[in-house]
Amino acid sequence: MKHISILGSTGSIGKQTLDVVREHPDLFRVVGLAASNNWEELLEQIREHKPLIVSVATKELADRIKLNCPSDVTVLYGQEGACEVAIHPECNFVLSAIVGSAGLFPTLQAIEAGKTIGLANKETLVTAGHIVMDKAKEHNVTIIPVDSEHSAIFQCLQGEDVTSVKRVILTASGGSFRDLSRDDLKQVTVEQALNHPNWKMGEKITIDSATMMNKGLEVIEAHWLFGLTFEQIDCALHRESIIHSLVEYHDSALIAQLGTPDMRVPIQYALTFPKRVTLQTPPLDFSKLLSLQFEPVDFERYPALKLAYECGRAGGTMPTVLNAANEIMVERFLNGEIPFLDIESRIEAVLAKHVKSAQPSLEEILTVDQWARNEASGV
Amino acid sequence: MKHISILGSTGSIGKQTLDVVREHPDLFRVVGLAASNNWEELLEQIREHKPLIVSVATKELADRIKLNCPSDVTVLYGQEGACEVAIHPECNFVLSAIVGSAGLFPTLQAIEAGKTIGLANKETLVTAGHIVMDKAKEHNVTIIPVDSEHSAIFQCLQGEDVTSVKRVILTASGGSFRDLSRDDLKQVTVEQALNHPNWKMGEKITIDSATMMNKGLEVIEAHWLFGLTFEQIDCALHRESIIHSLVEYHDSALIAQLGTPDMRVPIQYALTFPKRVTLQTPPLDFSKLLSLQFEPVDFERYPALKLAYECGRAGGTMPTVLNAANEIMVERFLNGEIPFLDIESRIEAVLAKHVKSAQPSLEEILTVDQWARNEASGV
Repeated sequence: MKHISILGSTGSIGKQTLDVVREHPDLFRVVGLAASNNWEELLEQIREHKPLIVSVATKELADRIKLNCPSDVTVLYGQEGACEVAIHPECNFVLSAIVGSAGLFPTLQAIEAGKTIGLANKETLVTAGHIVMDKAKEHNVTIIPVDSEHSAIFQCLQGEDVTSVKRVILTASGGSFRDLSRDDLKQVTVEQALNHPNWKMGEKITIDSATMMNKGLEVIEAHWLFGLTFEQIDCALHRESIIHSLVEYHDSALIAQLGTPDMRVPIQYALTFPKRVTLQTPPLDFSKLLSLQFEPVDFERYPALKLAYECGRAGGTMPTVLNAANEIMVERFLNGEIPFLDIESRIEAVLAKHVKSAQPSLEEILTVDQWARNEASGV
Repeated sequence: MKHISILGSTGSIGKQTLDVVREHPDLFRVVGLAASNNWEELLEQIREHKPLIVSVATKELADRIKLNCPSDVTVLYGQEGACEVAIHPECNFVLSAIVGSAGLFPTLQAIEAGKTIGLANKETLVTAGHIVMDKAKEHNVTIIPVDSEHSAIFQCLQGEDVTSVKRVILTASGGSFRDLSRDDLKQVTVEQALNHPNWKMGEKITIDSATMMNKGLEVIEAHWLFGLTFEQIDCALHRESIIHSLVEYHDSALIAQLGTPDMRVPIQYALTFPKRVTLQTPPLDFSKLLSLQFEPVDFERYPALKLAYECGRAGGTMPTVLNAANEIMVERFLNGEIPFLDIESRIEAVLAKHVKSAQPSLEEILTVDQWARNEASGV
């Protein structure tokens, strides 16, 4: 049985994780839930799933929760609270789904405590990949990706030797603006940006999908997760989001994972790995015409992806800055402060100011992350 | 190192197996070669690959070979000769690629001798699946499929539990006449039938591809190879022959194996399994537009496929009769004796005359096989 703590339980991935848990009460039990500000949703989750420990963003919210939930639930707050949820002794599996680099610290703590990690937070690996992977190795912890692309690659690698991999191909839907030119992008609104053609996701990732920074972060994540060079990681535009990613081996055979877009599939796979159990979701329908298209990705059209490859190859603190600056710029775009195209150009401006540290410690990463956020807020 | 005997070395699969062997002299050594009538090709193969033992169809051909090859090569003939090639003590891997049910006996002998089997001959499993699989189990022999579809499924099952399989989907190109209606088929010639759009294969399988009997035999083969019910085996028309087949698991995730059509990929995989080594073949090109189409298979358009499902479900000697009658009808079509559409109708006529035996012994199967051939020749 998996005894689960969910970091980011009121977000899109967190809620779908609880959907999966609900379907298999014989397999899963909720030990801890960490949320941010959505205390009402968290209260409902507490009532239904009866966790031992929960955490929210602030003391005020924690007090509000305490007033409304059973007295035997431990209610904490802040980063320390999230860390306690992550390392609770009764939990053996942590689903890490806090958006952005806020997920880094609790995830690291969970690894140190020897929990199996279901990783939906890609910023953790982007911003501190060498530290996270080293710690996972040291504590003999399995990190199972929950991102649909990395889950696909992880599934395609089962029973195979990673040294047989020639390359992986991450598929990209192209996001909400895939049919617009660079010129068209000058006019786009937040509402248009949030209208993803294939997936219903959180706001941050939907914007990242439109700039394709999301694919860029995934490239860096794949580098760390699977120990691949950046030359071994390619991207292809695949509008249907049916093929979730592919692995090409040295014999030119490709293995792909596919299905209708439903995040519960990779979430459940992470929870049941290496087994699979039934999931009620419409299977891909081969009784109808089905067409799958692939196009090469145009780096001029999606400069954020190019930037991510450059930062990934440069290594050190460059991906940290890329990620932090991107988080701030997406927030500023969502707040109506900056136009869509400025997300990319202002990230570039922050990167241009940064002097790279090659093998940063966690402290250095946190300092650089904060520096990049400050810069990004002002630039 | 794999010490290989090839049954059917001068056929399409046999020659491509030797192409693979040629590329990896450090991994593979040819122990034995069994051919039918193409003695000149076999002589060339003997000169290049220096086997210890070879076999041809007749004594006369064997004598001709003996006159022209080194005296230390054992030269045999007939079914017994092929069996000796299959069980040679220095061989540990038998690539079974004799076309039709003639491959059955030598393959069974190889299994009894404990050789690992690379199975390109689907008639072996169609005609005597329960006997072959029981023997493989008894002698702890691994049967690795070489058919592109079954190799694809085999690859997609690596690292997975077969009890997690919901179904498999065999892809079918639709063969040379996929754009013709049943009415158009009345007129077609042998030359047109042999013009396969995607694959260069032997004549028998190319005709089987046009009737889709090939897919039908593959359905029965998949039933035996993977222990699946016929309800778990579906087919989809996929014109590009890029996705070689798919496995759908209970969580609705699909794993597919794909690549440009090149039989050397599944051949080499069978030889190197569970490892993969480099193969010089053009990889699938994602730097260009790529489109993959799936259509449901119309059983009215392809009655041979429907027939195969019916015979597979009926079991016993029905698939034996189906396969034997089909072999004769294809031969008669290739000889210009019967029109294309008669392949199906005359197989049905033979099947209608047969009284099924439910759990036939090998002797019974051989008797029924011969009966069906006689019937099919006269009907």
